Amino acid sequence: MPVPLLNCDMGESFGNWSMGLDDEVMPYVDCANIACGFHASDPIIMRRTVALAVAHSVRIGAHPAYPDLQGFGRRSMACSPAEVEAMLLYQIGALDGICRAEGGRVTYVKPHGALYNDMTRDFDLLRGVMRAVHAYDPQLPLLVMATADPEPMKSLAAEMGITLWFESFADRAYDARGQLVSRREPGAVHHDQAVIVEQAVKLARGEPLTANDGSSLTLVSDTLCVHGDNAESVAAVRAIREAFQTLERT
Amino acid sequence: MPVPLLNCDMGESFGNWSMGLDDEVMPYVDCANIACGFHASDPIIMRRTVALAVAHSVRIGAHPAYPDLQGFGRRSMACSPAEVEAMLLYQIGALDGICRAEGGRVTYVKPHGALYNDMTRDFDLLRGVMRAVHAYDPQLPLLVMATADPEPMKSLAAEMGITLWFESFADRAYDARGQLVSRREPGAVHHDQAVIVEQAVKLARGEPLTANDGSSLTLVSDTLCVHGDNAESVAAVRAIREAFQTLERT
Amino acid sequence: MPVPLLNCDMGESFGNWSMGLDDEVMPYVDCANIACGFHASDPIIMRRTVALAVAHSVRIGAHPAYPDLQGFGRRSMACSPAEVEAMLLYQIGALDGICRAEGGRVTYVKPHGALYNDMTRDFDLLRGVMRAVHAYDPQLPLLVMATADPEPMKSLAAEMGITLWFESFADRAYDARGQLVSRREPGAVHHDQAVIVEQAVKLARGEPLTANDGSSLTLVSDTLCVHGDNAESVAAVRAIREAFQTLERT
Amino acid sequence: MPVPLLNCDMGESFGNWSMGLDDEVMPYVDCANIACGFHASDPIIMRRTVALAVAHSVRIGAHPAYPDLQGFGRRSMACSPAEVEAMLLYQIGALDGICRAEGGRVTYVKPHGALYNDMTRDFDLLRGVMRAVHAYDPQLPLLVMATADPEPMKSLAAEMGITLWFESFADRAYDARGQLVSRREPGAVHHDQAVIVEQAVKLARGEPLTANDGSSLTLVSDTLCVHGDNAESVAAVRAIREAFQTLERT
Repeated sequence: MPVPLLNCDMGESFGNWSMGLDDEVMPYVDCANIACGFHASDPIIMRRTVALAVAHSVRIGAHPAYPDLQGFGRRSMACSPAEVEAMLLYQIGALDGICRAEGGRVTYVKPHGALYNDMTRDFDLLRGVMRAVHAYDPQLPLLVMATADPEPMKSLAAEMGITLWFESFADRAYDARGQLVSRREPGAVHHDQAVIVEQAVKLARGEPLTANDGSSLTLVSDTLCVHGDNAESVAAVRAIREAFQTLERT
Repeated sequence: MPVPLLNCDMGESFGNWSMGLDDEVMPYVDCANIACGFHASDPIIMRRTVALAVAHSVRIGAHPAYPDLQGFGRRSMACSPAEVEAMLLYQIGALDGICRAEGGRVTYVKPHGALYNDMTRDFDLLRGVMRAVHAYDPQLPLLVMATADPEPMKSLAAEMGITLWFESFADRAYDARGQLVSRREPGAVHHDQAVIVEQAVKLARGEPLTANDGSSLTLVSDTLCVHGDNAESVAAVRAIREAFQTLERT
Repeated sequence: MPVPLLNCDMGESFGNWSMGLDDEVMPYVDCANIACGFHASDPIIMRRTVALAVAHSVRIGAHPAYPDLQGFGRRSMACSPAEVEAMLLYQIGALDGICRAEGGRVTYVKPHGALYNDMTRDFDLLRGVMRAVHAYDPQLPLLVMATADPEPMKSLAAEMGITLWFESFADRAYDARGQLVSRREPGAVHHDQAVIVEQAVKLARGEPLTANDGSSLTLVSDTLCVHGDNAESVAAVRAIREAFQTLERT
Repeated sequence: MPVPLLNCDMGESFGNWSMGLDDEVMPYVDCANIACGFHASDPIIMRRTVALAVAHSVRIGAHPAYPDLQGFGRRSMACSPAEVEAMLLYQIGALDGICRAEGGRVTYVKPHGALYNDMTRDFDLLRGVMRAVHAYDPQLPLLVMATADPEPMKSLAAEMGITLWFESFADRAYDARGQLVSRREPGAVHHDQAVIVEQAVKLARGEPLTANDGSSLTLVSDTLCVHGDNAESVAAVRAIREAFQTLERT
């Protein structure tokens, strides 16, 4: 059976500062969400990350963000849809420019951090994001959060002429609406690798998860978001990859 | 007879700050050197400037710079050739990304300010610039300063597989080597419109100028750099355009 | 009778970009709110602005903002109170550092733009602002918006050991709660100089204004915010200054 | 006998990115050179670093730099002496503003990276640095590189009314002029802790080192620059501290 693609944030170093185990995790993922210089990265790091993705035949996605290096793109900013649209065209183009020197191309777009969250709640902003993706290349899928009710987003995407890839998380607890449980609450993040792999396999098979209120939750999972922050998370990615290889043979 | 293209720096506003009379000068030029956010501009201003160029069928050029908004890209920075190469890919791509939403494309590259000056003196840096242009699109011409001895640059461009466009200035005095006389010296900048137009016509015809030591100076002029900073410079551009229209009919 | 101080945003140029008629308006104001490099300005412009204020014996106020040059500090950002507190200490200190070279000192603090608006609505943020002002120097007044009900802010200021200066506007229409009518609505901004001066004099005398719903509105006005953006606004400041000189003699 | 102060670069994290083992090395140093937001750090990190220094009764020094986060202040920039002067006032003031909330004060100034190197070679730039330090507080010592011939700098400092602290390095090889041997050359950096401690003790006692051409080199060492980048360098600092405690008792 086909399995969800594994996507991972990459290239989040900046200048002299390092972040993430890109070299270690790249061999096990399908899609590299590469920072574009607004929340992290710079042209040199983007180039190195693109080269690494190309070397491992990993798909390259633009990971655009609000212009906030200091806040790592995690602080919501009151940018207008037109501002966000222009920022996305800029960042996607910048990464694609770097790709040209390494034989790759941007093949999808996943907004980062506060922008990702804000667009989920604010469809005017999401329209701005979609206009940018469509203007750049109507073939580029846009990664969005899978929730219990994906219809409103699907409907908007159809209207805007955009392909969506829904992403879910193997290492996070969900509430009944399909929102991630806040990291501030106990049990929000799974650390046990067996639990993570089990959730990944359920998501791959389209089987329901158990939400934090005990209800059953089914999510569309075109792709799973995985992490390369530390050795523990890289090990979890390897374990998911191995489980998926078994699934693919079935 | 064919005449040199008129190129002009554009889109050098930033956020809430305005600079340049882009609307006034755009109708009279052939090529808009559009700032890419490193020395000036931001995604919103880039988009507005690209739209203006497209509306006037003006060719769009990337005008990349050192990352120095505060210094307007005019302060030399000790960036390595590899850094400059990656910065250029980033900036050309970013502008080209914006272009996609307005039906334009980046069709040439003109480095800005200190980077433009530094690459003229430092061929290692110039190789970095050329590698970026070539990797982005080997068809893109690179604008460089016309001097009395263009051979070394031509030879390097041939080796790197790059097309050069040599640019000269109608409103500046030259020394015998074909370098611009420093603005700090008297007579460095022509303010008399008749003098400017006369120099433009000589450059167009390939006729020699008189350098500041009285010697004769012949420059290759694929393009002339003109300015839209203020009403006086816009009027000079109009006058050059009119003179060139007469020339073109001959 | 004593009259409100006239305060004006100053030093909002940045690098090569100019903004505001600081030279023209400085002679007519009491207080210069000087940008600190986060929404506008840079060390060179700060120094020039401080020197101008010192030359005119105008009080120097820090005008700190969110870190957003591109958005001119007008985009709300989800910064925590602790982040805002540290940003304010940084910006007040930076301006005070520049002052030391020109014989001035920071004597009050007026947050700028989105930060000014956000702190009015979010008392956790306002506590962060007040902690910064108090830690820097408990004698420094904090400028806040005068509204119909200043008591909650006064009470918080007393708790935090901070002096408040309430500011009102001579050129803006108010609603019944003492909030500025949005610029998007008709009649929000007064352009008739006679109307502006009349409102300034009423505010100075503590006489009620007429809010946009016809009700009567009395505002505490320790200081009036005036503008040096263009010749029209500078002329209005001169007219207010002249009216106030008459008032002071009474 | 009195021993040189140990100074160490600190607070070089930025936003979400960490750098350096500040917590580990702070207990063993006398002076913390704290980044001021231009090459590294931000207001939150500055505050945390100042608090750590205050907790360990370590002297706080401003560590100002060129405005280049991406290049970590290591790329030379063509800033004028007046620009550098204003930048230093800004950065010293900003750090001192943060200090006010933690009960500390800036007590000396050590320029960072490319600015440190450039001012050593360019006395016009050094005058700008000295004017800033003097204007901020004429009592603040300025840290400069000890060389074989400190007289020109001493003479300039006397003229400008500035106190100098000369710093030397225990873990670097020197050439005959007292310049650091370039890191690109073999033997430029000492890794053997015994060698480092031996060089530190010689510098403390005013005994000559052996330069890389075999000649004898005596350096004035008011302070030694030590490093907290990794466990190895922290261990070396501890070892120097222990050796100095023995020296102090003699």
